[in-house]
Amino acid sequence: MGNYIYDFSEGNKDLKDLLGGKGANLAEMTNLGLPVPPGFTITTQACRSYLKTGELPPELRVEVTMALRRLEDAVGRRLGDFHEPLLVSVRSGAKFSMPGMMETVLNIGLNDASVQGLAEFSSDERFAWDSYRRLIQMFGKTVLGIDGDLFADALDKAKAARGVSSDVGLTATDLEGLVGEFKTIVREGSGREFPQHPREQLDLAIAAIFESWNTDRARLYRRRERIPEDLGTAVNIMTMVFGNLGETSGTGVCFTRDPSTGVVGVYGDYLVNAQGEDVVSGIRNTLSLQDFEALDPTAYGELRQAMRRLETHYRDLCDIEFTVERGKLWMLQTRVGKRTAAAAFRIAIQLVDEHLITMDEALGRVSGAQLDKLMFPQFDARSERVLLTTAMAASPGAAVGMAVFDSPTAVAWAAEGKDVVLVRRETNPDDLGGMIASVGVLTSRGGKTSHAAVVARGMGTTCIVGAEALDVDAAARQFTVGGRTVREGELIAIDGGSGEVFLGDVAVVPSPVVRYLEDGLDAAVAAAGDDEDVADLVRSVHRLLAHADTARRLHVHANADTAADARRARSLGAQGIGLCRTEHMFLGERRVLIERVILATDDAERQAALDALLPLQRADFVDILTEMDTLPTTIRLIDPPLHEFLPDYTELAVKVALAGVAGESDPHDVALLAAVGRMREANPMLGLRGVRLGLVIPGLFALQVRAVAEAVAQRLKDGGDPHAEIMVPLVASVMELHLVRDQAEAILAEVSEREGVTLTIPIGAMIELPRAALTAGRIAEAAEFFSFGTNDMTQTTWGFSRDDVEGAFFSEYAANGVLSDSPFDTIDVRGVGELVRIAVERGRATRPELTIGVCGEHGGDPDSIAFFHAAGLDYVSCSPYRVPVARLEAGRANVAEAGAQTR
Amino acid sequence: MGNYIYDFSEGNKDLKDLLGGKGANLAEMTNLGLPVPPGFTITTQACRSYLKTGELPPELRVEVTMALRRLEDAVGRRLGDFHEPLLVSVRSGAKFSMPGMMETVLNIGLNDASVQGLAEFSSDERFAWDSYRRLIQMFGKTVLGIDGDLFADALDKAKAARGVSSDVGLTATDLEGLVGEFKTIVREGSGREFPQHPREQLDLAIAAIFESWNTDRARLYRRRERIPEDLGTAVNIMTMVFGNLGETSGTGVCFTRDPSTGVVGVYGDYLVNAQGEDVVSGIRNTLSLQDFEALDPTAYGELRQAMRRLETHYRDLCDIEFTVERGKLWMLQTRVGKRTAAAAFRIAIQLVDEHLITMDEALGRVSGAQLDKLMFPQFDARSERVLLTTAMAASPGAAVGMAVFDSPTAVAWAAEGKDVVLVRRETNPDDLGGMIASVGVLTSRGGKTSHAAVVARGMGTTCIVGAEALDVDAAARQFTVGGRTVREGELIAIDGGSGEVFLGDVAVVPSPVVRYLEDGLDAAVAAAGDDEDVADLVRSVHRLLAHADTARRLHVHANADTAADARRARSLGAQGIGLCRTEHMFLGERRVLIERVILATDDAERQAALDALLPLQRADFVDILTEMDTLPTTIRLIDPPLHEFLPDYTELAVKVALAGVAGESDPHDVALLAAVGRMREANPMLGLRGVRLGLVIPGLFALQVRAVAEAVAQRLKDGGDPHAEIMVPLVASVMELHLVRDQAEAILAEVSEREGVTLTIPIGAMIELPRAALTAGRIAEAAEFFSFGTNDMTQTTWGFSRDDVEGAFFSEYAANGVLSDSPFDTIDVRGVGELVRIAVERGRATRPELTIGVCGEHGGDPDSIAFFHAAGLDYVSCSPYRVPVARLEAGRANVAEAGAQTR
Repeated sequence: MGNYIYDFSEGNKDLKDLLGGKGANLAEMTNLGLPVPPGFTITTQACRSYLKTGELPPELRVEVTMALRRLEDAVGRRLGDFHEPLLVSVRSGAKFSMPGMMETVLNIGLNDASVQGLAEFSSDERFAWDSYRRLIQMFGKTVLGIDGDLFADALDKAKAARGVSSDVGLTATDLEGLVGEFKTIVREGSGREFPQHPREQLDLAIAAIFESWNTDRARLYRRRERIPEDLGTAVNIMTMVFGNLGETSGTGVCFTRDPSTGVVGVYGDYLVNAQGEDVVSGIRNTLSLQDFEALDPTAYGELRQAMRRLETHYRDLCDIEFTVERGKLWMLQTRVGKRTAAAAFRIAIQLVDEHLITMDEALGRVSGAQLDKLMFPQFDARSERVLLTTAMAASPGAAVGMAVFDSPTAVAWAAEGKDVVLVRRETNPDDLGGMIASVGVLTSRGGKTSHAAVVARGMGTTCIVGAEALDVDAAARQFTVGGRTVREGELIAIDGGSGEVFLGDVAVVPSPVVRYLEDGLDAAVAAAGDDEDVADLVRSVHRLLAHADTARRLHVHANADTAADARRARSLGAQGIGLCRTEHMFLGERRVLIERVILATDDAERQAALDALLPLQRADFVDILTEMDTLPTTIRLIDPPLHEFLPDYTELAVKVALAGVAGESDPHDVALLAAVGRMREANPMLGLRGVRLGLVIPGLFALQVRAVAEAVAQRLKDGGDPHAEIMVPLVASVMELHLVRDQAEAILAEVSEREGVTLTIPIGAMIELPRAALTAGRIAEAAEFFSFGTNDMTQTTWGFSRDDVEGAFFSEYAANGVLSDSPFDTIDVRGVGELVRIAVERGRATRPELTIGVCGEHGGDPDSIAFFHAAGLDYVSCSPYRVPVARLEAGRANVAEAGAQTR
Repeated sequence: MGNYIYDFSEGNKDLKDLLGGKGANLAEMTNLGLPVPPGFTITTQACRSYLKTGELPPELRVEVTMALRRLEDAVGRRLGDFHEPLLVSVRSGAKFSMPGMMETVLNIGLNDASVQGLAEFSSDERFAWDSYRRLIQMFGKTVLGIDGDLFADALDKAKAARGVSSDVGLTATDLEGLVGEFKTIVREGSGREFPQHPREQLDLAIAAIFESWNTDRARLYRRRERIPEDLGTAVNIMTMVFGNLGETSGTGVCFTRDPSTGVVGVYGDYLVNAQGEDVVSGIRNTLSLQDFEALDPTAYGELRQAMRRLETHYRDLCDIEFTVERGKLWMLQTRVGKRTAAAAFRIAIQLVDEHLITMDEALGRVSGAQLDKLMFPQFDARSERVLLTTAMAASPGAAVGMAVFDSPTAVAWAAEGKDVVLVRRETNPDDLGGMIASVGVLTSRGGKTSHAAVVARGMGTTCIVGAEALDVDAAARQFTVGGRTVREGELIAIDGGSGEVFLGDVAVVPSPVVRYLEDGLDAAVAAAGDDEDVADLVRSVHRLLAHADTARRLHVHANADTAADARRARSLGAQGIGLCRTEHMFLGERRVLIERVILATDDAERQAALDALLPLQRADFVDILTEMDTLPTTIRLIDPPLHEFLPDYTELAVKVALAGVAGESDPHDVALLAAVGRMREANPMLGLRGVRLGLVIPGLFALQVRAVAEAVAQRLKDGGDPHAEIMVPLVASVMELHLVRDQAEAILAEVSEREGVTLTIPIGAMIELPRAALTAGRIAEAAEFFSFGTNDMTQTTWGFSRDDVEGAFFSEYAANGVLSDSPFDTIDVRGVGELVRIAVERGRATRPELTIGVCGEHGGDPDSIAFFHAAGLDYVSCSPYRVPVARLEAGRANVAEAGAQTR
């Protein structure tokens, strides 16, 4: 055909850019020989042209004329005919589905003449006038932009006049009268008559769908979801079929297998004598597909055949909409179906076992985010529960606690040891204290980028948002939902994986997937007992993780600071430690020593404190290296500003001032206040930290390097196989690294000679400042490895502080679409990612064998791992419990890349 | 010749990379036919090879043999000959002169045999033995690394034995004995005999010079000065000539014109019967060149001819070392001579007027840094003064004040209205308060990157460092210098341009160059009165600035926030305002309004305060636009965090706590404390600032945009020609700019319609975050101009805060060579500069007509402007008084670029 129109018989499922998702799948079904009502798709290209010029392109008008003629010929009916009229539906269909866009106008082609034809053809005058009434109402509202309430009010008046409560009670005559009234509404609301010419109806509807690409809501949605502005939408024109032409007609939806377990079977709903919108509105009870079989075995048989055909063809769970018109089955839509996280794993493995897909493909069907969800505790499926509502799952987990309605109460009750769930209309920065104190957060407003959602995800707190059914009355300390009132202190349970809100206590069970990861497959299967769903799930997870391990190129390390963390990380599959922070080792009873280092007035005093720390620090490293025997263990030298080890300046100032007026001054406090004041920085994040500390207080890094060297020496002498590496934080210039390396190598040489062992301890740089990335070519001269600290790099690249994220502008930015994900959760590919690419390229240009990893929290983020794979990193490092997620995503990334290359 | 050796007749002055500065100039003089003692240069290539392998390259040995043979043939004498021996000097000569490198070994070729030959040839036995003694001493110390004190002690003993105080009193026999002792010292100190073979002496000296490239001091110097590590040094081997062979011999230095005024003439010193080191050590009084003429008119005539030849050839002031050996003139060295800032301008113009150079070349002979120096007040040349010492000029200006020796005294005295000069051995961060309180800073230690130097330059405070002649005794509150004691409270005067320290008061006069810039040439010349030096200086500056204005491509704008600043900037040559900060407009009596905006509890209250600000802000803009009529005026929307308008949190907390215990709580303070606490950020530099403020508090930017729009409208209606531009600060993502632009355009359209004028007000982005630079291609979609905020970008790129620069690590970093200049003073080309290049490239790729400037303080830094020119910026913007400096440097940059292209 031309440029702007594809007949359903011409497209296929891979043309989503041009035909949108709906159009591409309709074409695919048509080509499979499935009974799709004839029709055609106007391409996104036409939309783009319209948006540029504000007019339907002239060629499009010609092509539509020709396509309509072909359609009329094929169907044997004509638009606007007053005997047997052709009616069409007009539906938008972008590449990505998008709330806020105009969706559908049905019954295009009806007018004062063809309504008679429809009545005759359907032998149902009431049906014909009702269809016409619906067209004018839908067209008036969505195409002509008339206030929908005007139509609804007129309808209500007609029902009142007839004394009925439902429009089913209106007669053909009533509806004919209503059509007249609706036409008046159109005339008065738009200044024009309702268009009688079917082609005019069609052109206006097409233009309206194109226009709806640019509604504020659609634009905001695209901004948030990072959908390009210039894609445009396709428009699908399809012959109308009617499920509401009596008892031999109906409409339904079905899945080719159970979307919550993956079991193959017949899952779906059917509604006799109804149209699609009736199923969705839920006003009548639906039948099961089994009942449909009994009702119409022929149509049911055809449907089953179509389902098998689609699943074999798409090689995945399909979600189908269909209509039966007087016994004849019509397929209206299909797409790959949504499923739960557990079902995703089980279905992927089932499809492998059914020889429909390979293990590589199966990896593409699951995600790290799904695995992550499976690792949270869940409500016990066998526990009784009272569902209050279902809303947006914003941060996973299962939380049970007393409902509280403000932050101070949450804090106070939590301090008494109570578990509380903070319920708010929406949260703001003032609620932060309450959010921290709560086991769960529930809001009645906001989406997944609202303040509550962003902050709760950041804190790992279970959260549900946008529960609009809830009427939250904070002043009355209660909420109502579905006529039920829940008061402060009553128990509620929220499922951050499913978005379900329950009343009362619900038993929580640990995740069977975590049990598998920690204790192995056999133990997890045994623990599942007779719950075959659970056993099948852990087996599926196991097979997919094992395949990911063989498929991936990226290594997965863990961030672990203690021997216990190291052991856990190793059991979860970590192939090394990518970040062992050493500052935690100066806390607790050692704090007094580091305080002495800081407050020392001369070198000898400082050195004495450092000397006291040496055996403690060495013992820490021996423990970790013992756990990580044979595997790389990257130890980062101390990073945070030293005043973090001292008391808060303001609190201390108030204390000293009050003691002063009371005549009870404590000289130690006064001295401490002076020291803290001297060390105070306007912006500690940009202050005396990391390598700067090491160069200003040389004894500090020297202590740590010596402790590493002596620990490695001891492990070697004990017959171990330690692989310690020393990482220098916050490097901005290669000069810093040269200076540290000179010092460190002298110490390593000295310990090596004294202990009589060969110490091979690589020294590398943490790349966490923009300058380090930009000058990576020079830094690689002095670094044997790079490790990206993407948390800090996000702060400096964007110029905002993680400490302040919960503050004023972050949720505002999520709401207005500046940020979709928090760049602290998922790597900002355009900004921070660009620096990563630059650093990898320049670093490897200097030193091709440079080992490069990432140890920021992005290392464990499913959405970021594919980026790190593509950027050419050698490993990602993340917290121990993210290791399985990272293993899975690393496998997926490599398989996806290989797939892209062979395609 | 070969790879490693160039005869003096083979090189030229452009081969400095290969021959070093000294060698290249010796070759140039040789080729000019000037009487240079024959010799040759070993190239830096040989040094690099030596440093790689640790051995003199075998080819070098062969080439040296051949070169020596040619030299011996040419001179007609032979090394080591016992009748008429050839002696040579061996001197290092790198591309850049470098303290810490071995410089010279004289008299190579003397041994037990040839010392006799020298005695015979010179007819001066004492001279011969003294030369031999000097060789062994110099060779032992510098080549063999023996403690120099051992030689000095032996010499002292010999003088004591002879009963003389100077070595001139020693006889030939004494010196012969000393040679024996020195040989013993060599044997015992190095475990080897003093090498008798001249070739062995030569090879060892060459290797020692090569080795000296890598001394700690040389390396540190290179790090600080950013001289590449791998250049290596050349070595010059030259036939010895002797200025100490009696009354017809001598040695001198001269300049081809007066280095302090530029006047052509005979400036120099001559010392009869002496060698170079005697001139430098200043033990005897030198003669003027006029005296030399009387003494030896022939040699003087030859010298004058050589001077003219060199000046015509180098087309610049030359600095010359020469020796007369028994009436024969020898040229030992020449280079382009150093000069004062004033002389640089005058000489450049003189050379133009003498048709030696073009005006373009003249621009290359002066610098913005020199012009900057000329713009500070200076000590009155006619004022009497007592010079105490001269040290390193670290930060320009002329300061007179009472000497104080610690920071608390400086602060206390300054508070009493006294002018104080802080005198310290060296400064550290604890001295910051005192430095701020002082009119000048003087230290006895440290270099130009010491804490004192870096901080004083940053603050614009006059500073001299490294005055090692000063013995500072802070405890005794005094310093001594040259036997004189200066106590606390005594007046001293320091000249930060020349490094001179004077005792007592010295009259300070304003800069004649500033007078010229502010009042014009005629006024400045008139004010100079009969001081022709001053009049000539301002005329020279005028001509060079005027030429720079015609030569430059970069425009120069000014940063100005008030009408008065704008007027001054325009008079100093600014072609627009590149940065008009608006936050200052909320201070003073308006502070209460902005406080009300911040503390407002509802929108109406906030809007009322904003409405009250509108007419005030509009009036500000009308004033500035009136001053800047016809020229671009870039107004930046409010940038700093709002809590900067509120009191300090800790002070307020202490006040509230104390009032609390006293039972005198002030509810306003309590409320204010809560508000400040709520708005407090851990890292305000990375917090709610700039565009973030504008998006979180929409009324704020709207107020400012409206004020700009209304001001422009008013100016248009008043017949003006306003060119306002609106700049959005701290943009990280194009989304932010889209949102601000949408709001702003609506306001501009509204005002435009209401006022009936066409408003053309470009909206642009301040590029001051790494992410803005990296995503500049997208930001340019919504920005009509870019302006780099390199101050902020330096903070985030390096990850350190300007607020904390005076703190712990910055001076440490300067001292250990991590930082040479402060990156806040001179742009960090490798890091921040790289982001500038990226942003220019990506921004222009999206929008080729994008206007790009810089408004950070680097815009007025002479060393940064060439970079901005090369990066393709359209303008630099700087504080008004930096405008002339920027004009000059912009002209120089374009001329240098054009020169590089035609070369």
